[in-house]
Amino acid sequence: MNSLPDAAEHTVKPTALIVHAHPEPQSFSNAQMRSARSSLQDQGYDVRTINLHENGWSPVLDRSGFPSASTYFKPQVEQMAAANAGALAPEVRADLDALFDADLLVLSFPLWWFSLPAILKGWIDRVFVMGAVFGGDHGLFDQAALAGHKAVLLITTGGSSDSFGEGSRFGVLDTHLFHIHFGMLRFVGYEVLEPIVTYGPAHLDADNRKAALSAIHDEFEQIATRSLLSFTSPA
Amino acid sequence: MNSLPDAAEHTVKPTALIVHAHPEPQSFSNAQMRSARSSLQDQGYDVRTINLHENGWSPVLDRSGFPSASTYFKPQVEQMAAANAGALAPEVRADLDALFDADLLVLSFPLWWFSLPAILKGWIDRVFVMGAVFGGDHGLFDQAALAGHKAVLLITTGGSSDSFGEGSRFGVLDTHLFHIHFGMLRFVGYEVLEPIVTYGPAHLDADNRKAALSAIHDEFEQIATRSLLSFTSPA
Repeated sequence: MNSLPDAAEHTVKPTALIVHAHPEPQSFSNAQMRSARSSLQDQGYDVRTINLHENGWSPVLDRSGFPSASTYFKPQVEQMAAANAGALAPEVRADLDALFDADLLVLSFPLWWFSLPAILKGWIDRVFVMGAVFGGDHGLFDQAALAGHKAVLLITTGGSSDSFGEGSRFGVLDTHLFHIHFGMLRFVGYEVLEPIVTYGPAHLDADNRKAALSAIHDEFEQIATRSLLSFTSPA
Repeated sequence: MNSLPDAAEHTVKPTALIVHAHPEPQSFSNAQMRSARSSLQDQGYDVRTINLHENGWSPVLDRSGFPSASTYFKPQVEQMAAANAGALAPEVRADLDALFDADLLVLSFPLWWFSLPAILKGWIDRVFVMGAVFGGDHGLFDQAALAGHKAVLLITTGGSSDSFGEGSRFGVLDTHLFHIHFGMLRFVGYEVLEPIVTYGPAHLDADNRKAALSAIHDEFEQIATRSLLSFTSPA
């Protein structure tokens, strides 16, 4: 038996994956993503970024991603078969590997229609592969493949913070986000952190925009101790 | 002044628009859509169908849809400008006209990740145009352009009906659907009907599948008197 190696040799950098979806490189959403990234890097994270618009990501889950699909195309059946046969589309396989490598997943996007922009929804549809991320050898929730990993939403809204909340015009933000937090992230095993939100950046002047980006940097400095969302559902 | 025309001359057929999003023509989802369509036609509806996969709909809202976009691409600003200038992309303009013509909108899809498949989310992102459907001359909710029109979701789920509900594995379906019902449909003015759902059609045998399609036909026979969803938010 070898003696125990120095602790330093066993220090592995934590890894974060940022999946970003805004069509404008100069947007506040993009600046916010960069602020989060630099904050994570300052803390020693190894950060990988997937920029969906820049990559020209194709969001449609259909037969085209499964060359050997049977006549009757059932998406999850084909996902299971391709995952088992090592025959996933290369861009899906690459992003899936990045997903498994990441201790922390950050989904960075502008809230469009109280949900994900289609390009990001289609990343979930295609990369959260049945048979690889959940189902098959894996179960759901704590039995799914991303159990033990953390995820957080990094978003911008059109409406001001006043427009969200109990009795406010748009209702409670967390109610809108439930389908993402619980239905997508928790479903595949993630521990889901409280979302990080900039409300109405379009209405901020230069100074307030700078302050908002600085606040994002600070929030990511606290990411290790950020509160987890709890869900009323028993899952 | 002319005398009043006969009432018969003023009888206009009600119009329905079905927007359908399943990648497999032989799917239960597609059969369910056809059952809904024939039921509406039996009642005298003029029914138009938009089949997103069949049409190869492009779901990504970006600069490519706005040839004269400014250097800094802000989606809603470009939508407003294009709507005002009559410069929307032809496929968006066509679907927008279909939307305004329809007394009833039916969104027909399989529930993927407790939300819309990306191709349908991208139809909302691109066709619910700011400046045409809401905003600009229109407000939101009852002041938006689709006020007075009705909308209904026609969906299939992977999970059984037992897996949804208070205290059940996946939680309450209406909580997941809130971002669609309230955040998309009610937001642009629709009166939103209770959703029409077939749970777990993949697990039905031929007889039960037939019965489920017949139930869909019956539910659409009652569409004129179907209950409206009410929302706890004041909007």
